[in-house]
Amino acid sequence: MTATTSRELPHPDLSEVELPAVLFALSDPARLDLVRALGAEGQLTVAQCQATGGDVPKSTFSHHLKTLREAGLIRNEPSGRQRTVTLRRAEVDERFPGLLDAVLGEVFLPG
Amino acid sequence: MTATTSRELPHPDLSEVELPAVLFALSDPARLDLVRALGAEGQLTVAQCQATGGDVPKSTFSHHLKTLREAGLIRNEPSGRQRTVTLRRAEVDERFPGLLDAVLGEVFLPG
Repeated sequence: MTATTSRELPHPDLSEVELPAVLFALSDPARLDLVRALGAEGQLTVAQCQATGGDVPKSTFSHHLKTLREAGLIRNEPSGRQRTVTLRRAEVDERFPGLLDAVLGEVFLPG
Repeated sequence: MTATTSRELPHPDLSEVELPAVLFALSDPARLDLVRALGAEGQLTVAQCQATGGDVPKSTFSHHLKTLREAGLIRNEPSGRQRTVTLRRAEVDERFPGLLDAVLGEVFLPG
C-alpha cells in the first residue's frame, strides 16, 4: 500500500446503511452540529470541521468523523495536502427521504 | 403517595426536549420498531408493546419505554388495570417538523 492509497478511507454504499445507525450518528450534539455546518457549507476541510466542535480532544473528534462516515452521512477524502469532508446529501435524501430536511431545519422553536 | 398517583409517570413538555435526545431514543432498532407500531396503531397496551419487540428481557423493554418517554416520544399512562402507551405524534410534529414522517416512512428502499 502506498502513502496515497492509505489516505483513502472506506465509505459505505447507502443501500447498506440502516436507519438506526444514521439516527445514532446524528444523536450526538457535536456530530449534529458538524452535519449542520456541512449542510450549510456543503464541504469543509477537516480543520474547519474540528473548529465547529469547539475544544474537544482530537481523538474524540476523529471518532465523530468515523461514526458519521460509517453511517454514510459524510465523505472524508484526501484533497492535496488536506482532507475534505462532504455531506452525502443527495444520497442520504434518496435513501431516507425527508430525514436530513427535518434534522437540518434551522431552528426548532419551543412548542 | 397513594397507589394511584404512584402509577403516574413524568412526561416532559416537548419544549424541554432537544433533538439529539429524540434521535438517540429512535436509534435503537427495538425502540424504532415500537415507535413505528405506535405510529400505525396510535395506541397500544404495554403488553402489546412488549410483543412488538420479540423476546427481550423485561428490564430491557422497560428501559426502552423509559428512554422513549423521557425523549417526549410517548405517553405511558395508567388505564384501568393496564397501562396504555401512546405516540405523542402531534406534539413531536410541532416541535420537530417532518422528523416522524421521515422516520416512520414505511419502507426505505436501497438506493
